[in-house]
Amino acid sequence: MKQSFKYTAVFFAILTVIVFGCKQPQTKTDSTGQEAAVSKDPLPSWNEGTSKQSIIDFVTKTTKEGTADFIPVADRIACFDNDGTLWSEQPMYFQLAFAIDRIKAMAPKHPEWKTTQPFKALLEGDLKTAMAGGEHALLQIVMATHAGMTTEEFEKTVADWMATATHPKTGKHYNEMIFEPMLELLKYLRANDYKTFIVSGGGVEFMRTWTEQTYGIPPYQVIGSSGKVKYEVIDGKSFLVKLPEINFNDDKEGKPVGIQQYIGKRPVFTAGNSDGDYAMLQWTSTGSIYPRFGLIVHHTDAVREYDYDRKSPIGNLEKGLDDAAKYNWLIVDMKTDWKRIYPFDK
Amino acid sequence: MKQSFKYTAVFFAILTVIVFGCKQPQTKTDSTGQEAAVSKDPLPSWNEGTSKQSIIDFVTKTTKEGTADFIPVADRIACFDNDGTLWSEQPMYFQLAFAIDRIKAMAPKHPEWKTTQPFKALLEGDLKTAMAGGEHALLQIVMATHAGMTTEEFEKTVADWMATATHPKTGKHYNEMIFEPMLELLKYLRANDYKTFIVSGGGVEFMRTWTEQTYGIPPYQVIGSSGKVKYEVIDGKSFLVKLPEINFNDDKEGKPVGIQQYIGKRPVFTAGNSDGDYAMLQWTSTGSIYPRFGLIVHHTDAVREYDYDRKSPIGNLEKGLDDAAKYNWLIVDMKTDWKRIYPFDK
Repeated sequence: MKQSFKYTAVFFAILTVIVFGCKQPQTKTDSTGQEAAVSKDPLPSWNEGTSKQSIIDFVTKTTKEGTADFIPVADRIACFDNDGTLWSEQPMYFQLAFAIDRIKAMAPKHPEWKTTQPFKALLEGDLKTAMAGGEHALLQIVMATHAGMTTEEFEKTVADWMATATHPKTGKHYNEMIFEPMLELLKYLRANDYKTFIVSGGGVEFMRTWTEQTYGIPPYQVIGSSGKVKYEVIDGKSFLVKLPEINFNDDKEGKPVGIQQYIGKRPVFTAGNSDGDYAMLQWTSTGSIYPRFGLIVHHTDAVREYDYDRKSPIGNLEKGLDDAAKYNWLIVDMKTDWKRIYPFDK
Repeated sequence: MKQSFKYTAVFFAILTVIVFGCKQPQTKTDSTGQEAAVSKDPLPSWNEGTSKQSIIDFVTKTTKEGTADFIPVADRIACFDNDGTLWSEQPMYFQLAFAIDRIKAMAPKHPEWKTTQPFKALLEGDLKTAMAGGEHALLQIVMATHAGMTTEEFEKTVADWMATATHPKTGKHYNEMIFEPMLELLKYLRANDYKTFIVSGGGVEFMRTWTEQTYGIPPYQVIGSSGKVKYEVIDGKSFLVKLPEINFNDDKEGKPVGIQQYIGKRPVFTAGNSDGDYAMLQWTSTGSIYPRFGLIVHHTDAVREYDYDRKSPIGNLEKGLDDAAKYNWLIVDMKTDWKRIYPFDK
């Protein structure tokens, strides 16, 4: 792997942020072992219109046995980006907020950080100076906060953070800032025997700590960027130690690669929100059999969420908008298509 | 990754072989969406005795809510090695048989192989000379047969081979040489809400072509060794091209690492048959919460299958036998514990 690629990997590995422990609708199976019964309207937080209808039309036609559009259950693979698609990603990727909070918490044991960049700037609250070091600075931040401990220690750290940290704009826990319409879509697909996967540039071990509770997506259906781990046995106890070395960068062209390595099937449904998702949307939409559905969440609501697309430092969306018609991708307009954004919205 | 590690990876990447398209008991869900109802005896191909009883005791106690031994459904993760655990692996790993058959099929387009080792020896049926080149020779064989094509082309090649190739001893298709008692165990665990995964040193794309049909294990629950792939778009069509470069070696200490990268949870049940499975059995059995079950298939039946363990070039089992008592691993004696070996046995 080229060094530059490694650094890009680190950039994305640091990004997906997180939520944990908040109250939200049950997404797990009920006492009969089935997903909670879908009401007459499977997408109540979606306004009536062509966006909502096109989703329902797709699910309806692909699950009707004996028709040309029918997709067998084994091939109903649906992939979702996380940052900006299932939850918010502004003003910074939530995983970066986690990393910065970790730097602050760990600082007492690292007196050298008071005089070393990017740590010095971060501790002084000067994100701009800290990030002036570019990918190398990000690499240092990720390695200081995501490596050098066991996987179980890291999981606990994420869980503790998710239960306490809050978002600067809403004051809510990060795992409350998930998109209610997308939660409904996940449940609707699962109720129709689609398997739902997360395919994110964010760190896989960061996400897996909370995705099962928050989205109903178990750890083994979460694909993300990752660092290497090493198996160790000490005094009869076994550990996986997180190493300061990138294992996989699940972004851009890495997303179809990750889908192949982890899922082993080409998806028929994919949702994203930025050009980091372009390749996996294209991989989905250019399959030679079955109907295909690509969905792009367009952040158009400055009041209820954020408003950004082209030239945005986070969630940049250009190629996706340019080629949406060519690939028949649905551009979901948050402002007009969604009745509610977050579960805590009235 | 060190070069020596890469070559070992290749060795194991070439190994898991395959079956495809044979008749066998349905392992998929029935019309009610449930696993086929488990009869009164969930393991009819197991002889009565302590081995069978200890499995049933474990499943019974871990699924009884309100007891100290109860394991929540989300944590019921069961991992199975493939070669020698779910199907036979003699006289050579079935995936190596596939690779050799591919070399023969591709030879007309590679006249240079007539004079180049290890290809020359393979084409002359002299496996010993071909393998004298060690890991480097294996690497050449794997790369010639597992790279330089798209993932979809490779899948078709494996499927075609599985439908036609037969085993030298039994004359059966390779995917008929699966262990009926282990199929029953997979179904029994799933019927009790365990998720079953394959964790094999074999090539993941080789396995995924047939594991869903043969074992009821979908591609995204199959972990194995893998090569790198590259995303490419040509004339509006998208491909993943298999590169002649190792991505991951899922063997020995790589198995707990693979479990972490792909599943993200420590298993509570693991089955293997060789020292390649020692680390994942140990990782399973040294977890700090929940009851744990480790199972080793011991090949003791020279008449119905094969008889081998210590110092075997394939499926070498020494540490596993030495430490079975220490970790409370069940050593399954094929000859005495199993009523039937293969589904085609009477």
